[in-house]
Amino acid sequence: MNAEIITIGDEILLGQIVDTNSAWIAQYLGQADIAIRFITSISDRREDISKALLEASSRSDFVIVTGGLGPTKDDVTKETISQFFESPFVRNQQVLDHVKQIFLRIGRGEMPISNYTQADVLECAQVLFNDVGTAPGMWVERDSRCFVFLPGVPFEMKFLMEKHIMPRLMAMRSQVRVYHSHILTAGLGESFLAEQIADIEASLPHYIKLAYLPKIGLVRLRLSATGTDANLLRTDTENFAERISERLKEYVVAKEDISFEEAIIKNFGEANLKIAFAESCTGGTISSNLTKYKGASKVFDCGIVAYANHIKQEVLGVNKNTLDEFGAVSEQTVVEMAKGVQRISGAEYAVATSGIAGPSGGTLEKPVGTVWIAVAGKNETVTKKFQFNNNRQINIERSAMQALLLLWNLYVKESI
Amino acid sequence: MNAEIITIGDEILLGQIVDTNSAWIAQYLGQADIAIRFITSISDRREDISKALLEASSRSDFVIVTGGLGPTKDDVTKETISQFFESPFVRNQQVLDHVKQIFLRIGRGEMPISNYTQADVLECAQVLFNDVGTAPGMWVERDSRCFVFLPGVPFEMKFLMEKHIMPRLMAMRSQVRVYHSHILTAGLGESFLAEQIADIEASLPHYIKLAYLPKIGLVRLRLSATGTDANLLRTDTENFAERISERLKEYVVAKEDISFEEAIIKNFGEANLKIAFAESCTGGTISSNLTKYKGASKVFDCGIVAYANHIKQEVLGVNKNTLDEFGAVSEQTVVEMAKGVQRISGAEYAVATSGIAGPSGGTLEKPVGTVWIAVAGKNETVTKKFQFNNNRQINIERSAMQALLLLWNLYVKESI
Repeated sequence: MNAEIITIGDEILLGQIVDTNSAWIAQYLGQADIAIRFITSISDRREDISKALLEASSRSDFVIVTGGLGPTKDDVTKETISQFFESPFVRNQQVLDHVKQIFLRIGRGEMPISNYTQADVLECAQVLFNDVGTAPGMWVERDSRCFVFLPGVPFEMKFLMEKHIMPRLMAMRSQVRVYHSHILTAGLGESFLAEQIADIEASLPHYIKLAYLPKIGLVRLRLSATGTDANLLRTDTENFAERISERLKEYVVAKEDISFEEAIIKNFGEANLKIAFAESCTGGTISSNLTKYKGASKVFDCGIVAYANHIKQEVLGVNKNTLDEFGAVSEQTVVEMAKGVQRISGAEYAVATSGIAGPSGGTLEKPVGTVWIAVAGKNETVTKKFQFNNNRQINIERSAMQALLLLWNLYVKESI
Repeated sequence: MNAEIITIGDEILLGQIVDTNSAWIAQYLGQADIAIRFITSISDRREDISKALLEASSRSDFVIVTGGLGPTKDDVTKETISQFFESPFVRNQQVLDHVKQIFLRIGRGEMPISNYTQADVLECAQVLFNDVGTAPGMWVERDSRCFVFLPGVPFEMKFLMEKHIMPRLMAMRSQVRVYHSHILTAGLGESFLAEQIADIEASLPHYIKLAYLPKIGLVRLRLSATGTDANLLRTDTENFAERISERLKEYVVAKEDISFEEAIIKNFGEANLKIAFAESCTGGTISSNLTKYKGASKVFDCGIVAYANHIKQEVLGVNKNTLDEFGAVSEQTVVEMAKGVQRISGAEYAVATSGIAGPSGGTLEKPVGTVWIAVAGKNETVTKKFQFNNNRQINIERSAMQALLLLWNLYVKESI
């Protein structure tokens, strides 16, 4: 089945929002072995919407369209698709009752007229009832193709995908299966990894593809097999994954499709070890990155965001002399921060960051992008200085990532 | 100028990464009045790449292609474009020296053979030298159209855009100007806002478009004017923006294109007020969201991520009896957490969260998604209970957002 996604909304083409819906949909459909082949983002212009639908219907069996279904005038999708499918609107009473109900619950009095039109659906469509919002989804079948129209609000889109779309897809899916196997590595660049496994890569059968997905300090390897025999695909892919893992042993963090943070939660959790964070320049980002994932509470009790020097002293117990003599951005300070939060939390491992995230605050000696990181472990404390660049958000993101890499390395060293 | 973006990489179509490059490029080009009309994501398949290039050359003057330029075998973009433009490769000595230099610096010995090919560029292209990575960019002109090929690694792409692409574009840009004006509102849904300003919206001239961009608790209004007289566009748009702001006064958070967090930093900063956070279920996300933005240090000194109960007691001073009697997820606990971090930090405002983010940990009385938030202000402490759903990351994101909305409301109330 050839599937594609069309996202509609000026805000995407202006770069005001990042299209996270498409990645979610792609991943979600991947579970049903449906591969997305194209993702197109277009503006709220009638002609672009018509053109994109026409193109999609020439190459895809299944087309998911998100966005543009709101009640305000800038949302022109519905009128455009009414013309495209040559299908008039009918007002759906169940949807109308539901929309009225929502407005009643908010208790703001009379419902705006524009919301009545949200109950208007294409005559040719099956209505996908939206329990969690006002805009219903629509499912249109035309010339043995399926078009699905969903609101762009992420949780409404996800609700409709889970409740209505997936069950229908499971019923129609074809015999072609895709099997993925993942290996997450840390500490070696992609071309070096490729060299180490060149012979294995060369021996892959034509139906298994190997991809390298690098990300600050990490490379994810993905083996993807396509075919009809699910068992064979799994066995073959897992065999190759095992050979690669064995070869790259010292760099392997996880043998499944999980994030670095999840791998840390898993490993520390199994070893009954806790981690604490004392963050200055990363401002809570390391804590936030870790607690995004379930099971975080098994390894994490406490984070202190000590943004100001007086908090570094009063809460973390950093010595005033240390701050005066070496400054907040120094090896000495991050070591005391790490040991401070280790003491407060009782955690075996503690990570501390202090740096100049920018865009201002730099000096000749410590320019913007200077970051010190310390990790206090069971026996040892390690530190590292980084010199990043001028972009605040990138500096924070890379510092948070490097801090976890340092933590991982010390953990591996102390676990041998 | 019609511009479009093509992003290449299986990882995008599998939903393994979110394409943030496109939003960045769109926003960045917007500064030069260049509007992106299409964003297409395709996989690393030769036929899809050729097809996308062909389509783009039929409708756009300027095409930016990112990704697929890495040294490993899964990256087929270069070979495909060599065929597409019927242009052979030439090895660029300057690029080769640079790539070798990078490997020398890493100090891992001999450079892998695959990296030599990174110095191979299309004969018909102008080379965009990449100071910060190994894959050079390429600029190809063909039939009065421009094609630009950039690596997919975000900071390399950004470097090339800033250093090479923008200067060239500024030199070629046309006379058409686009002017945007933004109003950020909190506390009223988009259809209610639309009703309140219906007469103003109806009176907009044809060259000004109004868009509503809703996001949990917030709606951003964007007026976009297109024309040739930059002064006229600015004056007209700003006049309408002013009329709308005046009408919606009580809901307006900012009259510029900034995030809610930036508006908070600006307002609290100007009022010389500090904010502190005591986070449980949000796990540092509120601190992280705020400190993402420059100037955060003017309003923020201290955040405590008190994930475990013993940290709530020992660090924040929450009463053991409170935890025993009402539980960690309770109004009483979040109030004590907020007051605790207010005392520790000396901040005028303190925000506390405690809830069950999920996916496990719920009970009949307090199901997954139950979240208590407290804001302690100068005179008053307010609390609110939320019942979100089953998705951990969405629960965290919404809790963090609602916490700042509560903070904002109390601030507005106490500032009158």
